[in-house]
Amino acid sequence: MRVLVTGAAGFIGSHMVDRLLSAGHSVVGFDNMSTGQQRFLESAIAHPQFTFREADLLDRKSLAGAMEGAELVVHLAANADVRFGTERPRKDLEQNTIATWNVLEAMREQDCTRIVFSSTGSVYGEPDIFPTPETCPFPVQTSLYGASKLAAEGLIQAYCEGFGLQAYIFRFVSIMGERYSHGHVVDFYQQLSEHPDHLHVLGNGHQRKSYLYVQDCIDAILTALEKADGKVNIFNLGTDEYCEVNDSIGWICEHLGLRPKLTYSGGERGWVGDSPFILLECSRIRALGWRPRLSIKQAVLATIKFVSADAAAVKAES
Amino acid sequence: MRVLVTGAAGFIGSHMVDRLLSAGHSVVGFDNMSTGQQRFLESAIAHPQFTFREADLLDRKSLAGAMEGAELVVHLAANADVRFGTERPRKDLEQNTIATWNVLEAMREQDCTRIVFSSTGSVYGEPDIFPTPETCPFPVQTSLYGASKLAAEGLIQAYCEGFGLQAYIFRFVSIMGERYSHGHVVDFYQQLSEHPDHLHVLGNGHQRKSYLYVQDCIDAILTALEKADGKVNIFNLGTDEYCEVNDSIGWICEHLGLRPKLTYSGGERGWVGDSPFILLECSRIRALGWRPRLSIKQAVLATIKFVSADAAAVKAES
Repeated sequence: MRVLVTGAAGFIGSHMVDRLLSAGHSVVGFDNMSTGQQRFLESAIAHPQFTFREADLLDRKSLAGAMEGAELVVHLAANADVRFGTERPRKDLEQNTIATWNVLEAMREQDCTRIVFSSTGSVYGEPDIFPTPETCPFPVQTSLYGASKLAAEGLIQAYCEGFGLQAYIFRFVSIMGERYSHGHVVDFYQQLSEHPDHLHVLGNGHQRKSYLYVQDCIDAILTALEKADGKVNIFNLGTDEYCEVNDSIGWICEHLGLRPKLTYSGGERGWVGDSPFILLECSRIRALGWRPRLSIKQAVLATIKFVSADAAAVKAES
Repeated sequence: MRVLVTGAAGFIGSHMVDRLLSAGHSVVGFDNMSTGQQRFLESAIAHPQFTFREADLLDRKSLAGAMEGAELVVHLAANADVRFGTERPRKDLEQNTIATWNVLEAMREQDCTRIVFSSTGSVYGEPDIFPTPETCPFPVQTSLYGASKLAAEGLIQAYCEGFGLQAYIFRFVSIMGERYSHGHVVDFYQQLSEHPDHLHVLGNGHQRKSYLYVQDCIDAILTALEKADGKVNIFNLGTDEYCEVNDSIGWICEHLGLRPKLTYSGGERGWVGDSPFILLECSRIRALGWRPRLSIKQAVLATIKFVSADAAAVKAES
């Protein structure tokens, strides 16, 4: 089948493109290259079933053109800069909410009826129930990122009811692995490259977080697409474990052979809107037969290996 | 205090303006007059503490100007055309979600920190729990109207966390009373004016709905403003009863002295996204000492009295 992938040159998007191409699908990649990277699409570009469209989702004409003939949209493009939500609030509104509305309108115009959407566990705000199920009490938003993803979820759900679309909405924990290009592992790696004896940590280091390996994430999406057939299919995606930020730091430092002095900005939250505890109840997706193959530790290690090898490669090239 | 009321020339907005002025506040009314009516502001216009600004919430400059010096924003402006959500989806996005974002940004610029927001029981989609509490399981949206209000709620909540605002979010059932100018009572009245012997009803007539009298609604908002002091205060607003659409038809016809033949479009829902059963759990607002003074029947009767008297007056003038 023909699939449009938005955010195709991004971390998760480029892996999705590769996986869809290996499965024999024809793929149109769409990306505005604001954070996407050409090199992540190297193997895809060489594939005869892949075409790439560099454009912004706010450009509705390009979007409609790229969607022509697609049976499925995998909508991964987003402003994923969770931490800077309060500095540039318009960006979340435009790139997450309005962009998703444009995707939905293009689907309506192009008679494309199935959509995969990458939402986030951040839509739960600071929940009272752990692990947090998809049906937890109606949450209160604590970040602009979460709010913009919630808005997009709501739009998608309403389009399913009003225009007969079928949706697969995934609420992710933080995704880790090869091609990871922003977030705490990159931050820590960059700090340690500059000053190997010192690492500054946002929050008190006791924030409890869940991470999921990118290939496990994509397995879950493909499993749901194959086995779930509701009108609006919502799945949490994560592992059944969590770690403290301090645990993750320990694994990273051990891998790098460093013992930096740690300093902390303090407080339960790393930044405004940071959730001190993320642990999602994932029995709904597990009931379809999916389970993650990598543990949180293995996912973090895969990430730091990629980040350090990648930094070395980039340095060697320049 | 100085209060900005958006949607000031609308049904609920104009009553809010009158109440705030009687309570001694200084009020700036803001309305784009797309559905607002000048005549609803007749007494306000004569009041020395009232100023009116005709502009659209998408015009950020006018909005910021109108907000100057305001301590509270009562944000009631919306595309309230619930039923036509699937015909003009951009309107809900612009007038409800983006407009709310503009209000929040203007508040940030103008150092205005308190906001009242009119959300809707439609954000619960088609819930499983009746009466539906504010903390019911995370709902799935079934209408573009509900989705756009949910998006606005999420934005407001995130701004409270990120920028220190304080919010009062009210999830309304349908509001009834004087100056009511769209919705089922007007539809039924117009039909019966044209053909008194026949009334066509959307759905099977067994949809169970809740209605609240507009002055009771405003009492509740003012009570919450006075007595609740959380960062994000969310309240359902409704009565503890519901009626069938057929009950409401009975009261209206009895009042008009008509016995029309009823025909039904059929089905549990009047239109796509219509919720077959709305009954909100309102113990949270009742705990603050509020209770509605009018029953659903009294609210419907007040509405049909207004609608028929108003139609007669408009006819006499023309």
